[in-house]
Amino acid sequence: MTRADTLSTVGEFGFLDRLLPRLAGRRDVIVGPGDDCAVVRCGNRRLLVTTDALVEGVHFKRDWLTPRQLGYRSLAINLSDIAAMGGHPTFGVISVAAPGSTPANELFAVHAGIEAAARAAGMAIVGGNVSRADCLFLSITVLGEVSRRALTRAGAHVGDELYVTGTLGDGALGVRQLQRGERRGAAVQRYRQPRARLKMGQLLAEHDIGSAMIDISDGLLQDLGHLTKASGIGAEIEVDALPFSPALRRLPQTEALGLALHGGDDYELLCAVPPRRVAALERLRRQFECPLTRIGRCVPKRLGIELLGAGREVHVRPEGGGWDHFTS
Amino acid sequence: MTRADTLSTVGEFGFLDRLLPRLAGRRDVIVGPGDDCAVVRCGNRRLLVTTDALVEGVHFKRDWLTPRQLGYRSLAINLSDIAAMGGHPTFGVISVAAPGSTPANELFAVHAGIEAAARAAGMAIVGGNVSRADCLFLSITVLGEVSRRALTRAGAHVGDELYVTGTLGDGALGVRQLQRGERRGAAVQRYRQPRARLKMGQLLAEHDIGSAMIDISDGLLQDLGHLTKASGIGAEIEVDALPFSPALRRLPQTEALGLALHGGDDYELLCAVPPRRVAALERLRRQFECPLTRIGRCVPKRLGIELLGAGREVHVRPEGGGWDHFTS
Repeated sequence: MTRADTLSTVGEFGFLDRLLPRLAGRRDVIVGPGDDCAVVRCGNRRLLVTTDALVEGVHFKRDWLTPRQLGYRSLAINLSDIAAMGGHPTFGVISVAAPGSTPANELFAVHAGIEAAARAAGMAIVGGNVSRADCLFLSITVLGEVSRRALTRAGAHVGDELYVTGTLGDGALGVRQLQRGERRGAAVQRYRQPRARLKMGQLLAEHDIGSAMIDISDGLLQDLGHLTKASGIGAEIEVDALPFSPALRRLPQTEALGLALHGGDDYELLCAVPPRRVAALERLRRQFECPLTRIGRCVPKRLGIELLGAGREVHVRPEGGGWDHFTS
Repeated sequence: MTRADTLSTVGEFGFLDRLLPRLAGRRDVIVGPGDDCAVVRCGNRRLLVTTDALVEGVHFKRDWLTPRQLGYRSLAINLSDIAAMGGHPTFGVISVAAPGSTPANELFAVHAGIEAAARAAGMAIVGGNVSRADCLFLSITVLGEVSRRALTRAGAHVGDELYVTGTLGDGALGVRQLQRGERRGAAVQRYRQPRARLKMGQLLAEHDIGSAMIDISDGLLQDLGHLTKASGIGAEIEVDALPFSPALRRLPQTEALGLALHGGDDYELLCAVPPRRVAALERLRRQFECPLTRIGRCVPKRLGIELLGAGREVHVRPEGGGWDHFTS
C-alpha cells in the first residue's frame, strides 16, 4: 500500500485485511474480527457480535424499497451473520443518520420494519441513536448466543462436501430488475426482504454437521474464497448443481451462472460438511426450512477454486469477482 | 405530530420519545431504550449495550481533529455512556462509512485512535465493517458489564444531593474556539480527547453511592432534564457551585454559565446521592480520579428545575436548551 492509496483503490476487503493484524487478541475473545460475527465470552455464555450498515446510494436507492422494507432488510442482513455462526439472535441496537428534511413518519416506518424483522427472529431492539447527515445511513449491531460452538469460516478440510441453502442469484437479479425500473416479481421481493437462514444455521451447528460456514452476501465465489482462505483449502464447484429459482432458470444459462457466482445479496448459507456427517445431515432434512443442495467439495489449497461442469473447467482466483463496495 | 413533520421539526429527542413506547419489553431486558445504555441479561451477567455515532459536518469538521483524534473521541463518547451506568467496558464493534477518495492511511489513523482509547479503557475492538458514503460516518457499539447493579437515570428521590465530576463547559468552549479557528489550548484538547469517567462511575455504582446517574453530553440542563424526568422529580442548581476550569473562569460569568448549562461535549457525570450516602461518598474521595462537586439537590417535580444564586432565581423548563442534532 502506498501513500496515494485510497479506499477506492484498496477496497473494502483490502482495508479490513490490513486492519485485522492490528486487532489484538484476548483470552475472552474466542473469534476476533474477520468472521461473520465476533465470538466473545460473557460469563459462561458465548456471545456473538456483528455490525453491518446500509448507506443510501451505495447499498440501495430510495425508490427501490419502502422505508419499512429498508428497515426490515437492514436487520435481516445482520441476522444472516448470526445465522452463519449457527447462533440465536438476542438483542440489537440501531444507529440512524438522516437528512433533517426526512419526514418523521418515514423514519418511524424504517423502525417498524426493523421491529417486524426483530419480532420474527425472536430478538429485541434495546437501544439506538439518531443523528443528522446528508444521506440516509443505517447501522445495526446485533448480539446473539450459540448454544454449543460457533461455526466459523475456518475449519473446513479437504474432502468436506459443500452445501448451500435455498437458491443463488436471486438477490442480484432483483437488483438488476430494480435498476431497470421493474418493481415486482420474486427476485425483487427477495432483494427487499432477504430471509436470514437462522434455523438452518442453528441445525447445522448444533447437530455438529458443519465444519465451516459463511453467509453468501457478496456472491458465491467471493464468499467461498473467504471460507477457503480461512480454512486453508481449495474448492471444486459443480456449476450444474447450483440451485436456481424458477426466475433464474428462465434466464440464459451463462447469465444465471454469472448472477449466482458473482452477484450478491443472496443471504444464503454456504456450509462445509465432513463426509462422516453427511448421513446425519440427511436424517435432519425433514426439519429443514429450505432446500440444502450439495454444490461441490473441498480440495487441497494448491488447486485453488475450480468450476466444473457443462463441458468446461474454469479456474478462478480465490479473491475474484464479488461485491466490494469500493472497487466495484 | 403531523404528516408535515420532519426530523428537523421534531428533533432527535422528539423522535426518540415517540419511538420508545414501540419498543417492547422482555424479561431479559433489564433497562430498555432511553437510558445511557441498555442493560440485558446474558446468563448470570448483566450486559450493557450502547451505540453512538459521529457524522462529519454535524458532530465535527475534518480540520477540528486529526484522524487519530477523531477515532479516539468516537470511542470515548461511547465509553462515557458505559461510565454513566457504572459499568466496565468489554468489547466494541465499529461501523465506518467514508468517501471512496478517503486516503487509506487516514482511515488507519482513525482506527489507531479507536484502538488507543480501547486499550486505555481495557476493552477490545472485536469487529467492524467499512462502507462507502458521501461523508465520513463513524458508528461504534460498545458492550460492558456491571458487577453489581447498573445506575440508571431513574432512581433519584426528592432530597438527594446532586454532584458532577470534573468541570463543566470546557467541551463547548473547545467547539467555540475551533469554530473561531483556534487550534490549541486546554478546552480544544478537552473537546478532542474527552475522558470517560469510567472509574468514577464504577465507584459511585459499586459502593452504592448513587441513586441515579447520567453523562453530561448535551449540556447540564438538558441532561439534568433527562434525569429529573426519568426519576419523576425536580432540581435546584446552585450556579455559584458549578465547577469551572481556569479557562472558563477567565470568561465573563454569564458566558461561562451559558457554556456550562447549555453547551455540550463535556462527558462528565451527573450523579444523585441520597443524604445517607454522603458520608460514604466522602470516605471514597481519596480514590477519586477527578473532582466531584456538589451542585444542588433534588426537589419535588412540581418545582421543575430552578437555578439559584448570584442574586437571581431563574426557572427553566426541563426540556430546554441543550444540544439536539436536528433542532439546533
